[in-house]
Amino acid sequence: MTKDDTLNSLDYLFKPNSVAIIGASADPTKTSGLPGAYLVKRNFSGEIYFVNPRYTEMLGKPCYPDIAAIPQVPDMAIILLGAKNSIQAVKDLAEKGCKAAIVLASGFAELGAEGQELQRQLLAAKGNMRILGPNTIGLMNLTDNIALSASSALEIANLNAGSVAIVSQSGGIIGSILSRAAGSGLGLSKLVATSNEADLDVADMVDYLSDDPATKIILLYLEGVRHPEKFELAAKKAKLAGKTLIVYKIGKSESGARSAASHTGAMAGEDRIYDQFFKQNQVLRADYFSDLIDFPVSIQNGKRLSNNRIAILTSSGGAATLIADNLGLMNFEMPLPNADTAQTLRSLDENLPIDLGSNPIDVTLAGLKPELLKKIIATLLASDDYDAIAVVVGSSALAMPDLMAGAIREGMGDSTKPIFAYVSPYAPQLVATFIRQGIPAFAAPEGCARGLKALWQVSQWEKQAPVVVSPIERTAMPNPDGFKGTLNEHDAKALFGKFGMPMARERVITTSLQATIFEAEVKKPLVLKILSDQITHKTDVGGVVMNLRGIQVGAELEKMRTNVLAKTGIRIEEFLIQEMLPKDLELFIGVKKDILGFVLIIGSGGITAEVFKDSTVYLLPHEAHLGVSEEVVLGMLQSLRIWPLMTGFRGQEPLDIPALIKVVQGFVRMAQQYRHTLIEAEVNPILVHVQNQGVTAVDAVAVFEK
Amino acid sequence: MTKDDTLNSLDYLFKPNSVAIIGASADPTKTSGLPGAYLVKRNFSGEIYFVNPRYTEMLGKPCYPDIAAIPQVPDMAIILLGAKNSIQAVKDLAEKGCKAAIVLASGFAELGAEGQELQRQLLAAKGNMRILGPNTIGLMNLTDNIALSASSALEIANLNAGSVAIVSQSGGIIGSILSRAAGSGLGLSKLVATSNEADLDVADMVDYLSDDPATKIILLYLEGVRHPEKFELAAKKAKLAGKTLIVYKIGKSESGARSAASHTGAMAGEDRIYDQFFKQNQVLRADYFSDLIDFPVSIQNGKRLSNNRIAILTSSGGAATLIADNLGLMNFEMPLPNADTAQTLRSLDENLPIDLGSNPIDVTLAGLKPELLKKIIATLLASDDYDAIAVVVGSSALAMPDLMAGAIREGMGDSTKPIFAYVSPYAPQLVATFIRQGIPAFAAPEGCARGLKALWQVSQWEKQAPVVVSPIERTAMPNPDGFKGTLNEHDAKALFGKFGMPMARERVITTSLQATIFEAEVKKPLVLKILSDQITHKTDVGGVVMNLRGIQVGAELEKMRTNVLAKTGIRIEEFLIQEMLPKDLELFIGVKKDILGFVLIIGSGGITAEVFKDSTVYLLPHEAHLGVSEEVVLGMLQSLRIWPLMTGFRGQEPLDIPALIKVVQGFVRMAQQYRHTLIEAEVNPILVHVQNQGVTAVDAVAVFEK
Repeated sequence: MTKDDTLNSLDYLFKPNSVAIIGASADPTKTSGLPGAYLVKRNFSGEIYFVNPRYTEMLGKPCYPDIAAIPQVPDMAIILLGAKNSIQAVKDLAEKGCKAAIVLASGFAELGAEGQELQRQLLAAKGNMRILGPNTIGLMNLTDNIALSASSALEIANLNAGSVAIVSQSGGIIGSILSRAAGSGLGLSKLVATSNEADLDVADMVDYLSDDPATKIILLYLEGVRHPEKFELAAKKAKLAGKTLIVYKIGKSESGARSAASHTGAMAGEDRIYDQFFKQNQVLRADYFSDLIDFPVSIQNGKRLSNNRIAILTSSGGAATLIADNLGLMNFEMPLPNADTAQTLRSLDENLPIDLGSNPIDVTLAGLKPELLKKIIATLLASDDYDAIAVVVGSSALAMPDLMAGAIREGMGDSTKPIFAYVSPYAPQLVATFIRQGIPAFAAPEGCARGLKALWQVSQWEKQAPVVVSPIERTAMPNPDGFKGTLNEHDAKALFGKFGMPMARERVITTSLQATIFEAEVKKPLVLKILSDQITHKTDVGGVVMNLRGIQVGAELEKMRTNVLAKTGIRIEEFLIQEMLPKDLELFIGVKKDILGFVLIIGSGGITAEVFKDSTVYLLPHEAHLGVSEEVVLGMLQSLRIWPLMTGFRGQEPLDIPALIKVVQGFVRMAQQYRHTLIEAEVNPILVHVQNQGVTAVDAVAVFEK
Repeated sequence: MTKDDTLNSLDYLFKPNSVAIIGASADPTKTSGLPGAYLVKRNFSGEIYFVNPRYTEMLGKPCYPDIAAIPQVPDMAIILLGAKNSIQAVKDLAEKGCKAAIVLASGFAELGAEGQELQRQLLAAKGNMRILGPNTIGLMNLTDNIALSASSALEIANLNAGSVAIVSQSGGIIGSILSRAAGSGLGLSKLVATSNEADLDVADMVDYLSDDPATKIILLYLEGVRHPEKFELAAKKAKLAGKTLIVYKIGKSESGARSAASHTGAMAGEDRIYDQFFKQNQVLRADYFSDLIDFPVSIQNGKRLSNNRIAILTSSGGAATLIADNLGLMNFEMPLPNADTAQTLRSLDENLPIDLGSNPIDVTLAGLKPELLKKIIATLLASDDYDAIAVVVGSSALAMPDLMAGAIREGMGDSTKPIFAYVSPYAPQLVATFIRQGIPAFAAPEGCARGLKALWQVSQWEKQAPVVVSPIERTAMPNPDGFKGTLNEHDAKALFGKFGMPMARERVITTSLQATIFEAEVKKPLVLKILSDQITHKTDVGGVVMNLRGIQVGAELEKMRTNVLAKTGIRIEEFLIQEMLPKDLELFIGVKKDILGFVLIIGSGGITAEVFKDSTVYLLPHEAHLGVSEEVVLGMLQSLRIWPLMTGFRGQEPLDIPALIKVVQGFVRMAQQYRHTLIEAEVNPILVHVQNQGVTAVDAVAVFEK
């Protein structure tokens, strides 16, 4: 084992030359007896230092009364003590020069305020030492056959070493995932439960595993991302190192409950921000728990999809239909072979009463012959008609379990095209056999289709050029101190205007006379609104009246003041009078501070925005000097259901998309310039006019920290 | 075995007293050797008559040269001959008085025109005899331990008799489902592959199994429903008999491709019509293949959900969170216990350092004690706070596999509240053990949540009063012969108007002078449209101009004529001039003939209808004299995303829903009156005005058979 010299290298944690076990027991039926037993069982080649004042010897090795008595500095330690004693042990170990420790004790931050205080003490005690946990079940390094855990869940019998690492914020779940991996035949490299993440977190593990030659795929089970910027850097490193990240993130169903009161919050449920966060970081999201097995199975052999055309080879017509249906739902195509390929296929066995030049190719029971299957597979792989093959193993093939696997192994030669196997009857052993041979195999038709889709996504990402984000320039502003609290509509508009957003003409008024003067200037029907930094939803309180003439404003203004006072208890002193514009397409543009960063939201706008919930999110760069590219904004617009309405729908004139993109980019510049104090900003609606006519914002909100 | 006296009873097929095997072989390695071997192996108590001219004896019984030589009339026969010989055998058996036959031969309708002709001949030959197949793998009656099949897939070792029947249109899939059922511990009653359905179809099987005391749940694997009315009747019978139908229907991904060219077609993808068809018939739809196991597992013990509040009991915090998240996605709630229940729970073990008065209740490793678990379960079942319990079996419980199962068995007593078990680590045997003991158990968190949701749906259906549909009266019409082909807009409106639909005022014109007169009458801006029974999408060809004054019509009319001629080659002779109404909420109402019946479609209308795809479907009663109730129409409206816009959205006035419902009911009366010749009819848009102002249809299409 080699380690680099830096003090913080997690090699000390994952492949130590020496391990101290603090609070070890000689009784292997006790939790504290297990870590030593596991190390010995797996023939750990380094030193083990047992520490327990009640023993002098353990498993044939000396046992020391305390940490001070350990004759050497151990690379790492497993601490099996209770919460308070663990803090002292961490302090002692750190002072001794130990590099890393696993703290198993619970009773820290997961228990609320009192535990949080203990966790702060733990962190203060650790010095330069790295801590895994507390409240963790530890880790397991299958590459080097080292178990550093007290959990029987990590010690199940049929674990294979392989290229998939598992990082979980839940100890209980890691046991579930790895037993499923073992049952499926998937090989594993490292397993680690980060749990409370007092020190080392998921991002640290991703960073470390990106350097691990044994690891190709990193599975993450997350309850939340504590440090989004750090996670993002680690994900970038993993990508550069050619590793694939796959995440299962819980908390989907809480998104509704957590949704904020403002429009922005309501429209950008937290889970979909996570979804976008993972997407932007090219982390595959596992939506089903079984994806945590099916996705690595699909991508681990390194074969990639160049396009979406799938050939299906089967001995069961029904199961092939089932697979074709599921692949179709994932936008794969199952085209017929072209004439040449069909001809070649047919020539492989002209005696069979079957059309081999088809798709699916149903060889039936009569065609279940090794040589024929091998040739069909080789032909399909060699043809330009298909990008992958899905092989269905039917009931009739069950009696000959190696028939299909053998045909695939021999037929595929050194082709780089993926072959997927769907096993139609219940035969988990057969599925595992395929997987151990490096052939992606699936027991569920959805798993097969979803796995192929995951492979498609990874293949697309690998082809993609990195996103280039151009630096933005700061806009000089008259108020060097920035803003505080909620701006009223007029001030918010003035701010956005500085960043290039065209506004409907308007004027702040206190009397109706001013409205008449304004009307004479704009020569348009008028909109009258209350002006208040306390009321966000003006429509709801009767604070907006449309389509007025100047002479009507006086009466409306008084009525409005009375109504709003009655409804909200707030007396309105100022009003906004605005030119009324024709109802062109209404959009919503917003930014919002989220735990994952600053989120840009674009959606269908106007008062019906909430009804259609047609919006899309993008996380702005963490770096305040970076903006968003035209491609990003265009991509967001194209992902909206209303996109067709912008591009010349049913004979209408296309809208001014270039102007809209520029305005969004300016709005992002504003958000980035104020990102340290801005909480949220929105324009709703912004009217998008026909081409060359630009856009006009009609209403604006900006909320800064107080 | 008792049978009723009617000639067609499928008892002869499923539990015969005597079986003839036509084309039997003495070689048990041949397909034709298997049915006899399976019957003997399972100690079939009735007579077996082997028929094969090449043998005189088989398996110790006489073998007859031909059907005529069989000394008795067999109850049923398995025909193992090729396609053409099978037809003759069917004829001979029918003439002999045999009641039912299974035809295994392929080469019939599944092969196209030639095979269809053979299938017709087969049907003509059968007389009063009933036929299963052709192209079937046969059936298996586990209740009475009778195998009538040549398929090894139906003969797997660990099949348990139980209460779940499987009916599949695919022979290959039945093997897949039953092997998964066997692996999961689910007990089966009858398995049957209907395949080509020349005679007996899925509906016949549902009808038969509804009378089968051994069957409580019927699983259907469908590629299509051949006879929707018959299926509907069978589903009603099953419901009255207290059986639950569960269907997996393939063809989801073809919905897009098959969508018709008209709006109606595009908006009502075929699969969602199936979806609605199953819903109206209270057939549970399995969307995942694994639902075919998880759903019967969830509902077979007869326990039902009275509400949606779930208590979670776990020894693994992580896995409980995973289950809670999945249950949350299915709209279940996991409330805390009320004060009394919490108190009772806490009193069960006051020494544990855990709050038992919580939800989830995480007993941790320390609390994994049989007596405690049993008492917790009994307490939760007795409380009014919860409607079901989800028990999580964590890794630590694996070493004590009967601990949880035992606690559940003892804790549940005779409670009728459901208990579900989620097994977190990979332990298929443990899952099967639970299921065999009648405790719903799941290996996937999604399966657990989906199963509970399915139980919720069944529980709701069982509580629902039957839908009452009131008869409708025919509207006297001047043209007794009905209509032919596509009506022009004006004629379609006249037709719909007879059934109570208010129309915007309009006039058919050929000259602009008529427009001026019309304008003087209506005193509104005008809309000018082409009038043609050949052009459906007028907007697309420039055939609509809005907001005209009478004096402008002349020029526009000529321009329109020229443009449409240029675009379509059609010369427009007549135009429609219509009053222009304010843009109130626009809806779409349509009916459309579908293979499953007549479909009513209501959706967001206007030219943007296609963009939002906000629509909903309902299958009209097959009986032409029945309409739809107010509740049905209201339910459809409420399921639309735009529903909030109709009910007084953000301070606006509510719309005239009662008038809208009446108009839809009238439109349905029209559709039912003409259902034998009507192909599709639509109104788009229909404007829905504020309360007491009614609705106004603006455009109309009606297409009849030619």
